[in-house]
Amino acid sequence: MNDNYLKLKAGYLFPEIARRVKAFCDGNPEAAKRLIRCGIGDVTEPLPDAVRTAMHAAVDELGKRETFRGYGPEQGYEFLRSAIAVNDFRAKGIEVADDEIFVSDGSKCDCGNILDILGNRNRIAVMDPVYPVYVDTNVMAGHTGDALEGGGYEGLVYLPCTEANGFVADVPTEAVDLVYLCFPNNPTGSVATRAQLEAWVAYALRHGAILLFDAAYEAYISDPSIPHSIYEIPGARECAIEFRSFSKNGGFTGTRCAYTVVPKSLKARTGAGELHPLHGLWNRRMSTKFNGVPYIVQRGAEALYSESGRAQVADLITHYMGNAAVLREAAQGAGLSVWGGVNAPYLWVKTPAGMTSWEMFDRMLAEAAVVITPGSGFGSAGEGYFRISAFNSRANVEEVGRRIRAIAW
Amino acid sequence: MNDNYLKLKAGYLFPEIARRVKAFCDGNPEAAKRLIRCGIGDVTEPLPDAVRTAMHAAVDELGKRETFRGYGPEQGYEFLRSAIAVNDFRAKGIEVADDEIFVSDGSKCDCGNILDILGNRNRIAVMDPVYPVYVDTNVMAGHTGDALEGGGYEGLVYLPCTEANGFVADVPTEAVDLVYLCFPNNPTGSVATRAQLEAWVAYALRHGAILLFDAAYEAYISDPSIPHSIYEIPGARECAIEFRSFSKNGGFTGTRCAYTVVPKSLKARTGAGELHPLHGLWNRRMSTKFNGVPYIVQRGAEALYSESGRAQVADLITHYMGNAAVLREAAQGAGLSVWGGVNAPYLWVKTPAGMTSWEMFDRMLAEAAVVITPGSGFGSAGEGYFRISAFNSRANVEEVGRRIRAIAW
Repeated sequence: MNDNYLKLKAGYLFPEIARRVKAFCDGNPEAAKRLIRCGIGDVTEPLPDAVRTAMHAAVDELGKRETFRGYGPEQGYEFLRSAIAVNDFRAKGIEVADDEIFVSDGSKCDCGNILDILGNRNRIAVMDPVYPVYVDTNVMAGHTGDALEGGGYEGLVYLPCTEANGFVADVPTEAVDLVYLCFPNNPTGSVATRAQLEAWVAYALRHGAILLFDAAYEAYISDPSIPHSIYEIPGARECAIEFRSFSKNGGFTGTRCAYTVVPKSLKARTGAGELHPLHGLWNRRMSTKFNGVPYIVQRGAEALYSESGRAQVADLITHYMGNAAVLREAAQGAGLSVWGGVNAPYLWVKTPAGMTSWEMFDRMLAEAAVVITPGSGFGSAGEGYFRISAFNSRANVEEVGRRIRAIAW
Repeated sequence: MNDNYLKLKAGYLFPEIARRVKAFCDGNPEAAKRLIRCGIGDVTEPLPDAVRTAMHAAVDELGKRETFRGYGPEQGYEFLRSAIAVNDFRAKGIEVADDEIFVSDGSKCDCGNILDILGNRNRIAVMDPVYPVYVDTNVMAGHTGDALEGGGYEGLVYLPCTEANGFVADVPTEAVDLVYLCFPNNPTGSVATRAQLEAWVAYALRHGAILLFDAAYEAYISDPSIPHSIYEIPGARECAIEFRSFSKNGGFTGTRCAYTVVPKSLKARTGAGELHPLHGLWNRRMSTKFNGVPYIVQRGAEALYSESGRAQVADLITHYMGNAAVLREAAQGAGLSVWGGVNAPYLWVKTPAGMTSWEMFDRMLAEAAVVITPGSGFGSAGEGYFRISAFNSRANVEEVGRRIRAIAW
């Protein structure tokens, strides 16, 4: 067996939240009825009509011999790869070819699977706080040492994201080979400016590093000066892989479709030090260990780019960002310090003086019957903060706002 | 980068077939119109009505806030895990618990991904001929040496499947740690008897080996004495992982749903030699690197177990196995030696004296405009054979039969 799995810390964030919520509900059946979940970042609003119409049509197609589809291309159907490359990139002046798009069943999957084509001796940097999947997949692949006392794993380079740096880490002073970047950020809701991304690209080109750029929340950017794609930065085609998802813009968390961009000009070093393109490796990985996304789902994703699809996505974003504004105002009104929630569906809130993240979690649960996510669950630099998700109905969010204001912080 | 990818042989079977078919069609536009493909094992008949009805209903559910579903359990919804465990196992007297079922997007994916939880120093045995994914995923993971001159890779143990052993390899005389078994077999269409599977389980228990049992074609077994699941053999819960798929029974090749069974009693050794259950590792792997199968697809798969779903699956199997009978008769009528096609949708046919697999491929293409799969593409022991797939319309299959008989072999 792969012993590296035994290094993983048992108390993973979301199971621990589930455990405490269950204990609370079991002990407080009345309060349990009022429980509102602002913890996990899962969408709540119906799947857009344009998507459902396309999926119904696709289901019907599969019912006739003449239009039945069996195995599709592992990389995704041309109709979807092309819709993505044209609409998300080329229409915005960003150079990405259709066959640099690899359609998949999720960014979480892609972020983990990408390690398949990379070597085992890379020095790896992650932000702190960090989306746990970046770390855990490296632990499982044997790229780290043991878990450390204060959180984190031996061998990884953690870059603290703090109030001082606006929750966007500076490039490290040391050389690393792989860097996970996530903007708009989960969990802090921070975004990187063009200048900050330019610094990361320059760093990567200088050190021969690869940037793994997770842009799952790009649709939530409202500030026109903030880049949506790493490929808006000159040089990124030589140093970056980008992950995108339909989960948070199209409401696909339960429908499963995402994509990864691997530019043909991106090269990595062999053990012997020679530069070799990664595009063919990822193509081979997808062909051999994946069999494509369901045809029905790909037709649904394509519909997000239709005129009605775009309008419906825009409505979803407006809804969730309206929620974010309500929550921001409520938290600020309660005297709390708040970041995020402007270009991202997450708010990053400082706990009142002296409270740990988990103490805040317990108090919000006990006093407001609201589930939040303790910042320390994302890394030691998250201690003293908590994340509130704006994914909810407006009525729920307004109620959460009232309850936050009602507590004597 | 992961240098192991550079060991992979460039001339993968199906791309080479595609290249030759394209050259033929470009050079013979008239014959191209008559082309019939019996190469790749992809289903051709419409998706069952029961599945489509369930998927339409699921799409509608996602359109209402009250019934919308976001992230589902990574291991699959309880309704599907339970339907699988009850119908495919417990109703047949086979002990498998609901939570030993892990729903996935394909057996190809699972066969590759399972290596994530296994160690890097295992001795691995495969059949020859072999489904290429078993080999290639091990090459990519660095479990082999370089490609060998005559085919195959250094470091793997190849077990020849020949006319003499009825295309079912005997257990090896040496000790190995991992064995890939595929019954009904792709490509030869052979099945293992209960006694043969008992010998494999006894071998695995004796050597502390794990059997990776690919049962993707179990629905095609017509002989009541042939086991459908490795867990019909006492002791298998201590040494085997089973892969099942809805691709070939429910026509899900383009709809994507499969499952893997990891018994809680299955243990593997740590580097220090201690026995440790694998169930928790696979559960963690799925939670961290996968986000579940689309809700819509899981509802479609569930419908395969309804009364109408079962009847429709039975009709599909009857159709494809009727095709297999037509092809068997035609090939035998043409004086060729044929195996398979009785408990599997594949026929394994000996080439006429002196012809290689690829010569046969070229001749079938040139003289009959029929695409087959050259046996040598599955391994050196496949040389001198070819595979015909029974996945087609009845009209096409009857025409293929006429063309095979018309050639002077």
